[in-house]
Amino acid sequence: MYDILKTINGPEDVKKLNKKQLETLADDIREALFNRLTKIGGHCGPNFGIVETSIALHYVFNSPEDKFVFDVSHQSYSHKMLTGRKAGYIDDARFSEDSGYTNPKESEHDLFNIGHTSTSISLASGLAKARDLKGQKYNVIALIGDGSLSGGEALEALDFVGSDLNSNLIIIVNDNQQSIAEVHGGIYQHLAELRRTKGSSDNNFFKLLGFDYIYEENGNDIEAMIKVLQKVKDTNHPVVVHINTQKGKGFELAEKNREVWHWCMPFDRETGRLNVTFPTESYTGLTTQYIMNKAKSDKDFVVITPAMPMTAGLSPDLRQQLGAQYIDTGITEEHAVAMASGIAKAGGKPVLVTNATFIQRAYDQISQDVCINNSPVTILLDYSSFAGLTDMTHLGIFAIAAFSNIPNLVILAPTSKEEYLNMLDWSVEQKEHPVMILIPSNAVTSRMADKNFNAINTYKVEQAGEKVAILALGDFYQRGEELAQKITEELGFNPTLINPRFASGVDENLLEKLEKNHQIVITLEDGVLEGGFGHRIAAFYADKNMKVKNYGLKKEFYDRYNPQKLLQQLGMTSDQIVADIKKIL
Amino acid sequence: MYDILKTINGPEDVKKLNKKQLETLADDIREALFNRLTKIGGHCGPNFGIVETSIALHYVFNSPEDKFVFDVSHQSYSHKMLTGRKAGYIDDARFSEDSGYTNPKESEHDLFNIGHTSTSISLASGLAKARDLKGQKYNVIALIGDGSLSGGEALEALDFVGSDLNSNLIIIVNDNQQSIAEVHGGIYQHLAELRRTKGSSDNNFFKLLGFDYIYEENGNDIEAMIKVLQKVKDTNHPVVVHINTQKGKGFELAEKNREVWHWCMPFDRETGRLNVTFPTESYTGLTTQYIMNKAKSDKDFVVITPAMPMTAGLSPDLRQQLGAQYIDTGITEEHAVAMASGIAKAGGKPVLVTNATFIQRAYDQISQDVCINNSPVTILLDYSSFAGLTDMTHLGIFAIAAFSNIPNLVILAPTSKEEYLNMLDWSVEQKEHPVMILIPSNAVTSRMADKNFNAINTYKVEQAGEKVAILALGDFYQRGEELAQKITEELGFNPTLINPRFASGVDENLLEKLEKNHQIVITLEDGVLEGGFGHRIAAFYADKNMKVKNYGLKKEFYDRYNPQKLLQQLGMTSDQIVADIKKIL
Repeated sequence: MYDILKTINGPEDVKKLNKKQLETLADDIREALFNRLTKIGGHCGPNFGIVETSIALHYVFNSPEDKFVFDVSHQSYSHKMLTGRKAGYIDDARFSEDSGYTNPKESEHDLFNIGHTSTSISLASGLAKARDLKGQKYNVIALIGDGSLSGGEALEALDFVGSDLNSNLIIIVNDNQQSIAEVHGGIYQHLAELRRTKGSSDNNFFKLLGFDYIYEENGNDIEAMIKVLQKVKDTNHPVVVHINTQKGKGFELAEKNREVWHWCMPFDRETGRLNVTFPTESYTGLTTQYIMNKAKSDKDFVVITPAMPMTAGLSPDLRQQLGAQYIDTGITEEHAVAMASGIAKAGGKPVLVTNATFIQRAYDQISQDVCINNSPVTILLDYSSFAGLTDMTHLGIFAIAAFSNIPNLVILAPTSKEEYLNMLDWSVEQKEHPVMILIPSNAVTSRMADKNFNAINTYKVEQAGEKVAILALGDFYQRGEELAQKITEELGFNPTLINPRFASGVDENLLEKLEKNHQIVITLEDGVLEGGFGHRIAAFYADKNMKVKNYGLKKEFYDRYNPQKLLQQLGMTSDQIVADIKKIL
Repeated sequence: MYDILKTINGPEDVKKLNKKQLETLADDIREALFNRLTKIGGHCGPNFGIVETSIALHYVFNSPEDKFVFDVSHQSYSHKMLTGRKAGYIDDARFSEDSGYTNPKESEHDLFNIGHTSTSISLASGLAKARDLKGQKYNVIALIGDGSLSGGEALEALDFVGSDLNSNLIIIVNDNQQSIAEVHGGIYQHLAELRRTKGSSDNNFFKLLGFDYIYEENGNDIEAMIKVLQKVKDTNHPVVVHINTQKGKGFELAEKNREVWHWCMPFDRETGRLNVTFPTESYTGLTTQYIMNKAKSDKDFVVITPAMPMTAGLSPDLRQQLGAQYIDTGITEEHAVAMASGIAKAGGKPVLVTNATFIQRAYDQISQDVCINNSPVTILLDYSSFAGLTDMTHLGIFAIAAFSNIPNLVILAPTSKEEYLNMLDWSVEQKEHPVMILIPSNAVTSRMADKNFNAINTYKVEQAGEKVAILALGDFYQRGEELAQKITEELGFNPTLINPRFASGVDENLLEKLEKNHQIVITLEDGVLEGGFGHRIAAFYADKNMKVKNYGLKKEFYDRYNPQKLLQQLGMTSDQIVADIKKIL
């Protein structure tokens, strides 16, 4: 097993192989993909589809002198195996050595840490520009999937590079006819035209922008890919190589259901059954239910997602049921947010759903298109918790810091099933505020909750007590409960426990009242402290006698951490906090 | 004067006019533009160029039933005059009634507050979508300039709308062959092809994306514009009307020099001489000098700007001198930032310069493409001060709150000429950090400054004192000096005066030392408090005995305020702060 792959310690070893050996190498790589993916999961379809191209790239070009930039870099597994990192795929004990994305700390063959879409052309154009300024000669290659082409950053870069960069830059458009879900947007229909005409259509998006253009029908054929890459190597101008590939190639289930197998959890290779068990009730499931019911009863209600329908559990058949009340804009966070503002302005009830880390791309649209206009848009964010995605490129822990300082935006942090659904429904129905809701990441819990949140920034006292007040925000509310109990047990009094609910504002009345019989306010939040919730509380009490202790994450790009260990390192366990309180009291 | 314009109280009055009267109306509008612009300045070229189109729009469509969305809305003056707001142009006493941008508070004919580019198509598509959900019938029209087409938000929207919105949406592409500076990018070369072929080229960017397409050569001819708009009125699918116009039409100077007259200060109509005097030394001038010298001596140095070269005083001849060391990416903040990261990664020394309000659009690129990768990019921000641009859509006061919570980013707030230039040079030469520098907005002052800022987050004690420590950041340093003096005079002791220099971090050592002989720490900052500099200081002292008073702006979309009055309202004058100190001491 892995006979050829085992001989590969770097790109120079790829260049020594003959045609048959290269094909065996592709088989070995696919075996290695199965080995890792069935056991720890990861990006599946993108990696199976790009094996041959990755081999051809290293056969033709000379990394690291020549520079590869992988869009999202979720398709870089083969590249990694070919550049000294096969152990992360064939040796189960060493899976953790490999991050699943390109990472300069792992290898000189990786230029950037990348995890968001549509960045590769811009980044590559910068490499090319610096090369030209320095009078150096090397190839710069960006590999981008068709799904990423709809992103503004990629479109801006295509527009600029085609006309204004008059030197070597090779853009490989990996056309597998799929975004994360199905593709949306005019570009994809145009790509279909280019495929249909084998690249010969008079209408050509890339040529029109100033690029040279080559079409390669057989993107999963190593020899064909070697030939086309040799043709463009050392080009003196920007060129697009449009390749037709099969997403999930070599893994039948993934070839058939490209959406489900874009990213996967550990699974059984034969049946495709996931080797994980899901809780019977989840916040995702609650979101799905709410959406389907609401859409049925209210024709003004509409769900928008920039290519992340599964964030709300919206499978293809549910999407079909929603019909015109469902909009997948493709990977276009900016457009999705601004469009939602337009919908709200004209009396629609838009709910936009995606991951916290991706909505960053629409910071300006949230500020300008939505918040300045006070459009009643609901933005539902998944994975805003430190316990969610732990890759440094996908952290949700900056959401509160990033968005809670934008005027007019109401950020809600629900703490139970009832509160989540009530907040969601309130937000959809009200017409006064743009609202962002952080979907809980905890196991579903049940607790009575208010239905009306019109009184913006009013916190809820869940347990009235003395001496110590705990402000436990959102996902950390349950930790607050645990802390309150521990204080009662260990310190012999009942502290006050508060559910702030509003991450974006201060309940000044309540905070003032706390001064009467409390000496310490504890804030707990599931995000970075700087710019976040707790610092507001600290600032409120800054010229008063209240002592405030803020607990949350540091301003840092954490990477693949163990959430529980991190909490301990940060001194955030109940025991540690009780010890801190003892020191002050 | 204004004989016809005076009869216009709303769109219904436009529809009553005959051809000759419509032409006189255009003349009246231009007179009114001169009246306002010569006296208070504003957007010049965009408004002169779109007079005929604005008249035709109101002649053909029925606002407010039909909805207009103006991109940037800096070309909406004519629209405003035709919708009951002519007084803001012909009556000098009432100029201030009109904001210079569309504003729903002014009129039901304005749908959104808009000031950033490339938003109109997305916003309009949302209106169209809500209309369709509700089963209503009306026209939605987006007017967008060719310069705005390069922005990712517009490109995302074009891609989506052309294929996925199967109903009425009319996009007027106002092609005046100019961005703010000259146009950049492949789309503009393509627009030239479409103009050359009078819209008949086989290659067609808009058709390729799924749009119906009509070209109108005579965009400054009312009759022609009426005809073409009548053709597309009530269309049942998305259509692009590509019109050829003359930017600055009817104002000879602006026709000839489209860049200089894009936006203007008060001027003499005959000579074009500005009726303002400039200080002999300015931070813009210092930036220009630094750039030109540095570029000459260091071929790795490169200036990037997303269409804002004048922010660094880079006139066309200086741009030409810079040659390959100058990159105008067009209106593409996302691409510009990511490209800068690529340049830095390959050993170049990139300085990106633009306005604070516009860089918001690259929040995610600053976080992911630059900061996660620790690329030594220098981002120079103009107009980050509350005393800069005061339109709600152009506020720079959110810059610190938005960006100082991104890990790895070093934000520098210089307080004098020497400090600014030393920081700039240090930043360009170092290889460890992404750096953002807030260009001072004050009059240029001179003071000795450090040259090396490697010790990140070390504040500078400019005057050692007792009891009260003043942390006066960036543009507010001079206010700190004034406050220190007032304290000495009124309270009889010398306070400590600190120049924090780093807006993005806390000098914990220094803050600890202050505890020995200070009871109060005052923070002064030129930005919103929430998420900003002072809250970090408050949080540091939250569990200690130090009293902290934060002075800065509220989290609010202020609009066209008087900066001095605002400071007073916020209790930020030296007298007010001294009074606060007295209460605590």
